[in-house]
Amino acid sequence: MTKVTAQMSVSLDGYYAGPRHDRDGHWMESAEAAGFFRITHWVIDAMAWRERLGFPGGEDDTNSRIVAEAFEAGGAYVMGRRMADGGEVPWGEEPPFRAPVFVVTHRPRQTLVRKGGTSFTYVTDGVASAVERARAAANGKNVAIAGGGALVRQVLMAGLLDELELHIAPVVLGAGMRLLDTSLDLGEFEAVELTPARVVHTPQVTHVRYTVGGRAPLVLDDRGRGEG
Amino acid sequence: MTKVTAQMSVSLDGYYAGPRHDRDGHWMESAEAAGFFRITHWVIDAMAWRERLGFPGGEDDTNSRIVAEAFEAGGAYVMGRRMADGGEVPWGEEPPFRAPVFVVTHRPRQTLVRKGGTSFTYVTDGVASAVERARAAANGKNVAIAGGGALVRQVLMAGLLDELELHIAPVVLGAGMRLLDTSLDLGEFEAVELTPARVVHTPQVTHVRYTVGGRAPLVLDDRGRGEG
Repeated sequence: MTKVTAQMSVSLDGYYAGPRHDRDGHWMESAEAAGFFRITHWVIDAMAWRERLGFPGGEDDTNSRIVAEAFEAGGAYVMGRRMADGGEVPWGEEPPFRAPVFVVTHRPRQTLVRKGGTSFTYVTDGVASAVERARAAANGKNVAIAGGGALVRQVLMAGLLDELELHIAPVVLGAGMRLLDTSLDLGEFEAVELTPARVVHTPQVTHVRYTVGGRAPLVLDDRGRGEG
Repeated sequence: MTKVTAQMSVSLDGYYAGPRHDRDGHWMESAEAAGFFRITHWVIDAMAWRERLGFPGGEDDTNSRIVAEAFEAGGAYVMGRRMADGGEVPWGEEPPFRAPVFVVTHRPRQTLVRKGGTSFTYVTDGVASAVERARAAANGKNVAIAGGGALVRQVLMAGLLDELELHIAPVVLGAGMRLLDTSLDLGEFEAVELTPARVVHTPQVTHVRYTVGGRAPLVLDDRGRGEG
């Protein structure tokens, strides 16, 4: 059955990139990129990622198997506009997805068909619509929310996310773009509950997969008093 | 050999408590407490924690063994003033530490000797001094930084922390007191590197222990271009 999943590489302090690059100069030389590449080293080193981009070499290890597994599970993708724009050139004529990608945007654009099974369809009527279209296109496989962080937050808070897998890199950045930031619209005594479903531990990164349970009240019980 | 260690229970979004309670009303009924108790459920349920407080029952499971191991490893503690004040009444005549505790504070106060081996010594000449005094008192065991978050950050950024163990509860709070917040004094192209040393996975919480490597530059290499 199709699940809606998200995968994000984050630092120990929860960032998926350095501070957002809004200034002049090349993104590749920005602090945003420096943070991003530190956090995603494990992906860029993985043979399974390099194969998808047509690059030789890479590590054939547990991390690579995690990447391969994620690609195999994804039948369709949903992606934010900034990520799609940023990837358009580096991903080239044959992007790594090999599946339909639905881009959430305000700007209408004709579907871009690439080689190898990847297409980019621009969806202007919102996140829920993009998820529905991806679900219809996923052919029984999963809908993967490819990022960025703002899109993952929207899908999570809309109650549309079934599974969240964090790849936690052992580094503290101190500043940057945070996946689970303070824009989550939760009440003071409200939380989102999850259940850890799988943990895979490597020297480079800790992979923790969660099943998303949804919003729940934070109940004050008497446990703190210890007389349970 | 004595190591300086810190253990903190945090939410998936990095909080160790709800939003700081600065208002009128009881702390126990605050959002800070609601978040704190959700995140520390696993401790409060653990038999090893309850035994230390003189309470019956509790779960005799992997989480309890993690608590017991932490208590056994701690030869002396360093604690922030707010935490020490907050614990003074609930910890009672026989606090759970059974070891010397050094409280970092601006307010001089006579050492408070409790039953069972716990004492509270108030250190007014800074964090490094408190860590040194704890090291001398630890008798070859570890110096455990007991919290709160501000103290752990200070010890980490002063380069005094050897090991950080996060107990990650599967819950998103959306707001609160963050352990690794934006007050870390890191440069734009600077990070703190760590190495994952142990991961223990339970349904209630994921325990990840890191060896702290220290500050390191974020180097922009050509990996993002994929031609490595």
